[in-house]
Amino acid sequence: MATYTPPLRDMQFVLHEVLNVTDELKLLPRHADVDADTINAVLEEGGKFASQVLFPINISGDTEGCTLDKTTHEVKAPTGFKEAYAQYVEGGWPALSCDPEYGGQGLPLVINQCMYEMMNSGNQAWTMYPGLSHGAYEALHAHGTPEQKATFLPKLTSGQWTGTMCLTEPHCGTDLGMLRSKAEPQADGSYKITGQKIFISAGEHDLAENIVHLVLARLPDAPVGSKGISLFLVPKFLVNADGSLGARNPVFCTGLEHKMGIHGNATAQINLDGAIGTLVGQPNKGLAAMFVMMNAARLGVGNQSLGLTEVAYQNAVAYAKDRIQMRALSGPKNPELPADKIIHHPDVRKMLLTARAYAEGGRAFAIWTALQIDKELHSDDEDERKESADLVALLTPIIKAFITDNAWIATSHCMQVFGGHGYVKEWGMEQYVRDARINMIYEGTNTIQSLDLLGRKVLGDNGKKLKAFGKLVQTFVEDEGTNEAMQEFINPLADVGDKLTKLTTELGMKAFGNADEVGAAAVDYLRVAGHLVFAYFWARMAKVALEKQNAGDPFYTAKLATARFYFAKLLPETAGLIRTARTGLAPLMEMDEALF
Amino acid sequence: MATYTPPLRDMQFVLHEVLNVTDELKLLPRHADVDADTINAVLEEGGKFASQVLFPINISGDTEGCTLDKTTHEVKAPTGFKEAYAQYVEGGWPALSCDPEYGGQGLPLVINQCMYEMMNSGNQAWTMYPGLSHGAYEALHAHGTPEQKATFLPKLTSGQWTGTMCLTEPHCGTDLGMLRSKAEPQADGSYKITGQKIFISAGEHDLAENIVHLVLARLPDAPVGSKGISLFLVPKFLVNADGSLGARNPVFCTGLEHKMGIHGNATAQINLDGAIGTLVGQPNKGLAAMFVMMNAARLGVGNQSLGLTEVAYQNAVAYAKDRIQMRALSGPKNPELPADKIIHHPDVRKMLLTARAYAEGGRAFAIWTALQIDKELHSDDEDERKESADLVALLTPIIKAFITDNAWIATSHCMQVFGGHGYVKEWGMEQYVRDARINMIYEGTNTIQSLDLLGRKVLGDNGKKLKAFGKLVQTFVEDEGTNEAMQEFINPLADVGDKLTKLTTELGMKAFGNADEVGAAAVDYLRVAGHLVFAYFWARMAKVALEKQNAGDPFYTAKLATARFYFAKLLPETAGLIRTARTGLAPLMEMDEALF
Repeated sequence: MATYTPPLRDMQFVLHEVLNVTDELKLLPRHADVDADTINAVLEEGGKFASQVLFPINISGDTEGCTLDKTTHEVKAPTGFKEAYAQYVEGGWPALSCDPEYGGQGLPLVINQCMYEMMNSGNQAWTMYPGLSHGAYEALHAHGTPEQKATFLPKLTSGQWTGTMCLTEPHCGTDLGMLRSKAEPQADGSYKITGQKIFISAGEHDLAENIVHLVLARLPDAPVGSKGISLFLVPKFLVNADGSLGARNPVFCTGLEHKMGIHGNATAQINLDGAIGTLVGQPNKGLAAMFVMMNAARLGVGNQSLGLTEVAYQNAVAYAKDRIQMRALSGPKNPELPADKIIHHPDVRKMLLTARAYAEGGRAFAIWTALQIDKELHSDDEDERKESADLVALLTPIIKAFITDNAWIATSHCMQVFGGHGYVKEWGMEQYVRDARINMIYEGTNTIQSLDLLGRKVLGDNGKKLKAFGKLVQTFVEDEGTNEAMQEFINPLADVGDKLTKLTTELGMKAFGNADEVGAAAVDYLRVAGHLVFAYFWARMAKVALEKQNAGDPFYTAKLATARFYFAKLLPETAGLIRTARTGLAPLMEMDEALF
Repeated sequence: MATYTPPLRDMQFVLHEVLNVTDELKLLPRHADVDADTINAVLEEGGKFASQVLFPINISGDTEGCTLDKTTHEVKAPTGFKEAYAQYVEGGWPALSCDPEYGGQGLPLVINQCMYEMMNSGNQAWTMYPGLSHGAYEALHAHGTPEQKATFLPKLTSGQWTGTMCLTEPHCGTDLGMLRSKAEPQADGSYKITGQKIFISAGEHDLAENIVHLVLARLPDAPVGSKGISLFLVPKFLVNADGSLGARNPVFCTGLEHKMGIHGNATAQINLDGAIGTLVGQPNKGLAAMFVMMNAARLGVGNQSLGLTEVAYQNAVAYAKDRIQMRALSGPKNPELPADKIIHHPDVRKMLLTARAYAEGGRAFAIWTALQIDKELHSDDEDERKESADLVALLTPIIKAFITDNAWIATSHCMQVFGGHGYVKEWGMEQYVRDARINMIYEGTNTIQSLDLLGRKVLGDNGKKLKAFGKLVQTFVEDEGTNEAMQEFINPLADVGDKLTKLTTELGMKAFGNADEVGAAAVDYLRVAGHLVFAYFWARMAKVALEKQNAGDPFYTAKLATARFYFAKLLPETAGLIRTARTGLAPLMEMDEALF
């Protein structure tokens, strides 16, 4: 009953009509040959994999969940997951954006971005297995020794092996400075790692023959806190000199969490009992090395929620066009039926359009950001690499927190469209809500993202990165200043930009007096910043749609209507957020701890 | 690990210090003798039942769920539910606010309100069994024949039998006018009912020896639509003349829904195959009769979410005082520990205080509304009965929708306080979120509530009912006009009142042009109205707290701090809502159905 159609047309609109990615990619030596036909062909095939292989095992994967054999410590993923992964590997998908030096196809990240969106729409829990692997690939690619790279990157690129990131311990998640796992140097230059890790996504499973754990631990006599943490590579099976699998390393799954959602992904408790590992990067610099992986993972989490928003929207639309209930208040809209289709009821449309505007706005934002990463990695202009890196740094917490908060709203709305039928499992709508909820928590809670944005990325460099993004907005506003048809989009965009600038200055002054003012305002601030970004991309999309609206393709009509909806019904949320941000710290700290 | 302490002190504050309920009850002949000691003693005992009997089987009930034996059609509730119900009956709790004529204790509904809030905190899924029974009691009490009352009310009052409401069918929930179940008159004056019902809460179980189903069905040749629906009483077991149980009636549970939450309550598919029933009320007037039950149920649903908000808050506070993670941005708050307690982080406080302000504001609002129902039922002044009835009619959709939307926000925040530990089942936090979600859907979706508020209750009588509530607000604002300490509460209260009045006028004008404008603005409107109500009760509570803040009881300090938080951080949401409400219908209807 559930349905999913890859949004290829909308992706092509963003890629080719709004962002002109092939023109941009032409300027990057590595990607100069990537043309639109290649991009479209890859995404069409990728869409088939997502909709025909992953989507059919999404609801069943949720119902069945993962199972742990406590004697062998082996985990079985839900029925069909292993076979889908085999198809994924056979199709060469893990290699899509990987380095050709290690067997990758070297395609730009904009393609990977779209591919992952579709896979997340198809099945978030499944997609976390290759998602974590790709994060491990990136961390090793950036910080691994030549030997580590030679041994592990080809296997991660092919997908033959998968990866994890082992950070959290029972007493510390956000505050990794408190972690206790220990690494003892061995005579042969390796380390024996001992400790207990929890919440390890894709931590144990039967999809691949080996699992490459990236583990944070402390060396003997390491400084206390976050400056004494090192990163280690700990494979499930040791690897022989010839690349074949050796002995089982004592890194065992001792339990699986029973969770609200993402049941198809194994959230493992991992016990390391003198497991053999090798150091990745410099001693005591493990957090920095891991952050390569975490930044990629944060963008990935935003993408999970983007995928959920899209698929929830599609299903809610299908239901709203089919379900009949009540007459419109203004008179029958389907007089031939015993009641009107619920898509004629204004608030049903409001719920649907909310999801649609968040999905399409998020898609444009996320693809644009992926393009910035391609520039950051492959531009031959150092300034451009730096500019792109700054924009990505600024926008990463917004992608993570704003898109995941929006998906929580959107998936809940889409479920509500189904009424009571949304609350029962058979339609899959409540699963989207449950799956979406974790995205607000892991890879740094959304509060942590907001502190990263306001404290570090904005105030931490005196607003320089924010100004760089603001300049893009300003240029666009000025360029369209004489375009009458664009005023309905440009004016509110300029307005929210001005207000964010003023708010930033005000908060900066306050934070100067008391650093906790940052924590009091950061969550509201991030949502206002997120709306500025969305307003910018919606205005850019509206511009293209306005230019082409008479071309006879109703796609542009829909795009314009959704843009107008965004500016009328979603952007005004900023009015309340700016007010609450400005009320500051005092109303939060007045009450003594004991009185809670 | 999970914890729940009945909020007796806060209930007493609302009952005795803010509302002076015993003074009000003295004016009602039936309740003139109810004194504060009685109320407090009942609530203290009730709190023990909720916290010591219901709460311990909440998480286990969610995990275990209900099971249906498909051959016998019998349902087993989770372990402990039956025993808890036996204790409930033995304690005389079902009779609390029931009519003494049928064995009830005749206590006012304000007490019942508090009792149910605590039971919902303890275990929403369990509490739905007696909750539905009480609704059936009320519908029968209002519309039953003398014979029906004599036979069934004493059993519902004692709790020996339970009740249900059987409305929804697979093709109709909101739009009951489309229902198809049929009732055929028999020679003896009874009816044979045939049809299929779904989503029947507490529809089948092993808690009681008989279940009294109230079933909506159509008589032969009934008018089409909602004017052709009649209400029937269909017991699971027929009742002999001597009151003993007779033959099994063919009203069978054929399936249980697998749901997002409230797993401990049996959501039954019910098949009626010529089941014998008797008519309740007039032929074709079934919806009106059922609305007696539905209005009570809507208040009950708001109360479910109030209970969840309170218990989620308590658990999140306990965790935030225990969990240490990161240092405060302004410097260490617990230098003796390796990190600060997370309750020192401003955004954690914001999440906690959001839940607290919604719980305490909702409690005052709900108890006050229950007091209005006591007046509506038992005042000897007809005008007062009418005034109270009007206020209850106005506020019922706000209680239902505003409090349940708030609980969705609050339980999600409280879960977020736990980080990843909130997402796993062991702490019970994610269960509160899942349980809270149904409250926004059943007994009329929150969109339906908003249409009821704006379309019927406000615009439908030209704002008369709204003005009656507005007058309470205005009087309070004027009375406190010279009280300098109250200005911080009175000014924003008066402001939101003015804005709601203007918005109402504007929407009334628009609706005159196009009735769908009501549907476009109603959900935003209800939230603004909800905030007006909350601002009123928070201002009233602040007034008492200001008067007593020097009495040495820190309770008043906390109350004032929470009031200030509400006005600073929650009420400003109305700024955005008023804007989106005013943007009207056009942005929702621009897009053609085919383009969704």
